[in-house]
Amino acid sequence: MIKTVPMKRVVIIGDETVEYRLVKEIHDIGATGYTYYLVRGGGAMGDRPRHAEPGNAKIEIICTPDLANRVLEHVSTNYFGNYAMIAFLDDVQVIRGEKFGATDA
Amino acid sequence: MIKTVPMKRVVIIGDETVEYRLVKEIHDIGATGYTYYLVRGGGAMGDRPRHAEPGNAKIEIICTPDLANRVLEHVSTNYFGNYAMIAFLDDVQVIRGEKFGATDA
Amino acid sequence: MIKTVPMKRVVIIGDETVEYRLVKEIHDIGATGYTYYLVRGGGAMGDRPRHAEPGNAKIEIICTPDLANRVLEHVSTNYFGNYAMIAFLDDVQVIRGEKFGATDA
Repeated sequence: MIKTVPMKRVVIIGDETVEYRLVKEIHDIGATGYTYYLVRGGGAMGDRPRHAEPGNAKIEIICTPDLANRVLEHVSTNYFGNYAMIAFLDDVQVIRGEKFGATDA
Repeated sequence: MIKTVPMKRVVIIGDETVEYRLVKEIHDIGATGYTYYLVRGGGAMGDRPRHAEPGNAKIEIICTPDLANRVLEHVSTNYFGNYAMIAFLDDVQVIRGEKFGATDA
Repeated sequence: MIKTVPMKRVVIIGDETVEYRLVKEIHDIGATGYTYYLVRGGGAMGDRPRHAEPGNAKIEIICTPDLANRVLEHVSTNYFGNYAMIAFLDDVQVIRGEKFGATDA
């Protein structure tokens, strides 16, 4: 099998204008890359049904566990109180791990 | 590390008109949120190559294992016989688990 | 719980023109389906900040471990030296595994 390195995939979904600002902040926190999607819906709206409502975006970051934690702490501290956002993470195996900050890639 | 709660991520990819209808049905089944993407291709078409064919969509739902099962049973029973759809799920760790129905979040 | 079969989810993100060509090559390698997204950003740009730069795409393939390996070997051999691409994989549980080449589905 091709060589891979374990990393975290962090996903943050929310209002497009907030997500756009968040891209810059995530860069300042230390993420060297991200993927940005325009989406509909947004997840976990509770009692605010937003089906078919436009204007949301999804940010996806592949990074080390430490950076994942810092990004999620930032989002939790600065956005979760006032914005309808969701955030989650899981494990992925990346090719060329050194691009993501792996020290043993 | 920031506190997380385990949830399921359910993905359903298929024809855009079917996916749009499915959003409403998934809401009725109990999902409080979803993310909806317009995509090309569609996965696992068997002998029907659809590369570069437009008109597909992807629904992604973060939810409890129980709700994931009910959504997939619904899709399997009502759509798989007649539509070129694919569905799969995996595990994610969410922030603010109470938004997704976690009882211990 | 609904019956599922373990498969790999392969993700390749890069320049849209390269990704478009890659779809054809992945088909020749044996993938019967894929999902194609237009995205912004692209992940792991190193010292080339491309925030808000358009023109990237993401290919997602659900397939057997063997096919996942062949696709990633192809991308690694033919593209990684000259293109700013990232690739990673993880595990998913699919419904109707026979669509993805599972022999015991």
